[in-house]
Amino acid sequence: MNAQDCLQTLREIKDVSFATVDQEGHPQIRIIDVMLVGEGALYFCTSRGKDFHAQLLRDPHVAIVGMTRDFKMARLAGEVRFVTNDPHAWIDRIFEQNPSMDDVYPGQSRYVLDPFVIDNGCVELFDLGVSPIYRQTFSLGGAPTHLQGFQITDACIGCGTCARNCPQQCITPGKPFAIAQEHCLHCGLCYENCPVQAIVKRG
Amino acid sequence: MNAQDCLQTLREIKDVSFATVDQEGHPQIRIIDVMLVGEGALYFCTSRGKDFHAQLLRDPHVAIVGMTRDFKMARLAGEVRFVTNDPHAWIDRIFEQNPSMDDVYPGQSRYVLDPFVIDNGCVELFDLGVSPIYRQTFSLGGAPTHLQGFQITDACIGCGTCARNCPQQCITPGKPFAIAQEHCLHCGLCYENCPVQAIVKRG
Repeated sequence: MNAQDCLQTLREIKDVSFATVDQEGHPQIRIIDVMLVGEGALYFCTSRGKDFHAQLLRDPHVAIVGMTRDFKMARLAGEVRFVTNDPHAWIDRIFEQNPSMDDVYPGQSRYVLDPFVIDNGCVELFDLGVSPIYRQTFSLGGAPTHLQGFQITDACIGCGTCARNCPQQCITPGKPFAIAQEHCLHCGLCYENCPVQAIVKRG
Repeated sequence: MNAQDCLQTLREIKDVSFATVDQEGHPQIRIIDVMLVGEGALYFCTSRGKDFHAQLLRDPHVAIVGMTRDFKMARLAGEVRFVTNDPHAWIDRIFEQNPSMDDVYPGQSRYVLDPFVIDNGCVELFDLGVSPIYRQTFSLGGAPTHLQGFQITDACIGCGTCARNCPQQCITPGKPFAIAQEHCLHCGLCYENCPVQAIVKRG
């Protein structure tokens, strides 16, 4: 699995949720089709009349999430760019790959849509359908990845309270004890129960 | 259809996307289960260790969206409240209604989850599976609803350019011409093509 596989997963899910921030600083959300995936790049489009379009031009930060039928969640947080290089050709290419778009925007009306690309950000795959759960994070286009969850420091006294409290059984003994980050829910029970505060938030 | 029906639709979809704003002012997103729906209220929970939890306490504005199998999108933008009145009893009630939660948070580990409610905001239903598309907006808990899209003003000269350009055929002749708001894509083609700038953005 890598960042490209995550983009392909988002394309296969197709109807994914896009979050933006509006002019009041509040989150906004809608479902948008992932129209194309290229090498390290995800393409979508929206029409110039929509609040979504205005939000993208004002603040290019977006977060996308979708879920497969078997409960794998693919997530991308990154920055959007308007595709300025021959946008009509990009819209034509998008309609070729997504023929049902013609039902919504027949004929020339398709050109009220503008193409956008995301090729920079942080991608995560999260599988809640396996036990223990599984997650992995990747950089897209060299963007820094934000650390989440917890880690056990050298202040660990080896009492095992964290491991006994972990609902995913993903903490193993050692000096110090260690959290298997790829199986961690980020629930915080180890952190709350450590008797010597040896567990800290990452990131 | 009313706001309560939209909440029920979100509960039936169950796995919906939640958008928040992080400490840097950027959108963040994840899939969360709608756990319960009461009269005018939607309940969910998340664990105290997650970034999502910290974001909710810092800024209670959230936006939620989900899609049914037949392409109806239900959306809610509103404010979240932590349920302070006997949170453990709420978590127990949530686990009764959502037994698969026990696989992820077995035994007492469930109490690392905190219950939250949304009972104030703006709800929208958007059906892309019909032609023309259909949308309707409702207030939840008396919150103001934000107007979107366009309207035709008295400056209309009745030329019909807007109606000919509308991809959903939802503009009808009159003095002035009128947009059937419940069928409008908000694409902006009428606005862009009006020869006398008689069409304005709403809201």
